Amino acid sequence: MLTLEAPLDMHLHLREGAMLQVVAPLSAQAFAGAVIMPNLVPPVDSLERLTTYREAIEAAVVPHRFRPLMTLFFRAYDRATLEAARPAIIGVKLYPDGVTTNSSGGVSDLARVEATLALLEELGIPLLVHGESHGFVLDRETEFLPFYAHWAQRFPRLTIVMEHITTAGALALLDEYPNLAATVTLHHLLITLDDVAGGLLAPHLFCKPIAKRPEDRAALLAAALRTHPRLMFGSDSAPHPIHRKEAAGCAAGVFTAPVILPMLADLFERHEALDQLQAFVSDNARRIYGLEPPTKQVRLAREAWQVPERYGDVVPFAAGETLNWQIVEVR
Amino acid sequence: MLTLEAPLDMHLHLREGAMLQVVAPLSAQAFAGAVIMPNLVPPVDSLERLTTYREAIEAAVVPHRFRPLMTLFFRAYDRATLEAARPAIIGVKLYPDGVTTNSSGGVSDLARVEATLALLEELGIPLLVHGESHGFVLDRETEFLPFYAHWAQRFPRLTIVMEHITTAGALALLDEYPNLAATVTLHHLLITLDDVAGGLLAPHLFCKPIAKRPEDRAALLAAALRTHPRLMFGSDSAPHPIHRKEAAGCAAGVFTAPVILPMLADLFERHEALDQLQAFVSDNARRIYGLEPPTKQVRLAREAWQVPERYGDVVPFAAGETLNWQIVEVR
Repeated sequence: MLTLEAPLDMHLHLREGAMLQVVAPLSAQAFAGAVIMPNLVPPVDSLERLTTYREAIEAAVVPHRFRPLMTLFFRAYDRATLEAARPAIIGVKLYPDGVTTNSSGGVSDLARVEATLALLEELGIPLLVHGESHGFVLDRETEFLPFYAHWAQRFPRLTIVMEHITTAGALALLDEYPNLAATVTLHHLLITLDDVAGGLLAPHLFCKPIAKRPEDRAALLAAALRTHPRLMFGSDSAPHPIHRKEAAGCAAGVFTAPVILPMLADLFERHEALDQLQAFVSDNARRIYGLEPPTKQVRLAREAWQVPERYGDVVPFAAGETLNWQIVEVR
Repeated sequence: MLTLEAPLDMHLHLREGAMLQVVAPLSAQAFAGAVIMPNLVPPVDSLERLTTYREAIEAAVVPHRFRPLMTLFFRAYDRATLEAARPAIIGVKLYPDGVTTNSSGGVSDLARVEATLALLEELGIPLLVHGESHGFVLDRETEFLPFYAHWAQRFPRLTIVMEHITTAGALALLDEYPNLAATVTLHHLLITLDDVAGGLLAPHLFCKPIAKRPEDRAALLAAALRTHPRLMFGSDSAPHPIHRKEAAGCAAGVFTAPVILPMLADLFERHEALDQLQAFVSDNARRIYGLEPPTKQVRLAREAWQVPERYGDVVPFAAGETLNWQIVEVR
């Protein structure tokens, strides 16, 4: 038996409309809260839009106790806007223009964001970043690291979260600057590019950033298992309907929401690190963000559970597989 | 206007049955001959099977003048078998076990093939190789190069063809051993992993070996354009029905057969190397293999042509795109 106190998913895509209704309860059942990504169409870039979206999420997760930790899509916001938004947000999420799903309209000139970053630093609002360049697919995260380094130096009191890191290089950078933090997904602890494209091509494992080399996965896993103090779990669970995945042009995103805690329990147990899981899925995030999540105990048991083939029209990670752990009680 | 004398596709998958009927005429129209891959289910590993298959191909390509250059699936054949097969084959094709479509039953211990390689050398039968290890997807070709080097040294009179090379490293090896030759595909001259997985995931561009880095493509293209004397065109055109491509597990193979010569003409024209195309698509192969292909003149004109969206239930490379060149006369 394993009891997790207030597990948090620090990077989550809940979508809108019918998809929100399907996926939000799955995260809300297992987690006390989650950082909600703002890359909708149109993006969540005003307090009004954010409030409407938060209310839709809150309605979709009834009766679960679950706090959506809202983010604003990065713009060159003025001080008044950020001050007004601050109580309603956990951070501002920066997307370079066009690097991932629904990121068009993101930042096209990274040299011009600094005035906004100065405001975020002054107001104590964390900056969350999809850190990829527009270069060759395997180099994008690595090519972005100098921006992290530059901002971390220039804005030493700004908390900068490198979202969904996938490389050993990003982890190394984490150790260089105390104001950097990072999230890592479940799937990047488990898969490499081999799983995506080494056998049959696997669209349901295709995501951005794309899974990298075995040595990258090994570094990420080692950091998660020893619970690097500035590494947080963030699923990047990103549902797409099956007709957008098994298609001539397959959308990026892995839908892990239903399987996260059972698979993390299995992974940490296999590496004899179950005692580190609480820090990885909750304590680190609470400390880094200064969060006080709702009280929630999630109990998992080592009991076999078969993952459904579909949730609505979305194929989950590990579809059809039998997992060793399952959630048996939430209170 | 461009006239090609007896163009040859030195690496082609024609399949069997209904698929053969769809795809064989497309290659037979544009080419004077092609090297036919033996990885059917079961493999083409006897003279009887090979003869039946050749006859099926010859029936499928009527009325085109087209010579199927047959290959045997590598086994530890004895001398009598190879001597009997020799007049009927252009070479023996070696697949490490399980590295690509229908390669199960291939070679599982590369250290044990040498007696057969000695026979091939003695009998003057070329060895064609799918040169990939079982390692990380991006390293497989590179990890295989030492086998090529070892065999090239140990069997200096054996012609060894590195099939569908995708890396600058394989090209470099070509220059080290005079008994090495190589084929390169159309798609590996055009795409990188970015095209497969850098935007939306593109199952119709997924193949083995997978497309590599921009610098690899640049090296391959440069070698093709200057027509390295031991580099031959081999399409590796490999059709799969759409339900095997736009699927949870997508089969490896790009179906280029209908577009090869128009797209090669466009590519070589753009790089002001049209005068090199004859050597790349025919003369090098004739010299390396000592071939005398059937007489065939293929004339292309710089006239726009729209690629069909489908051939049967197969999606071709560049489906729906308008190409600058088309075949206007074959005689």
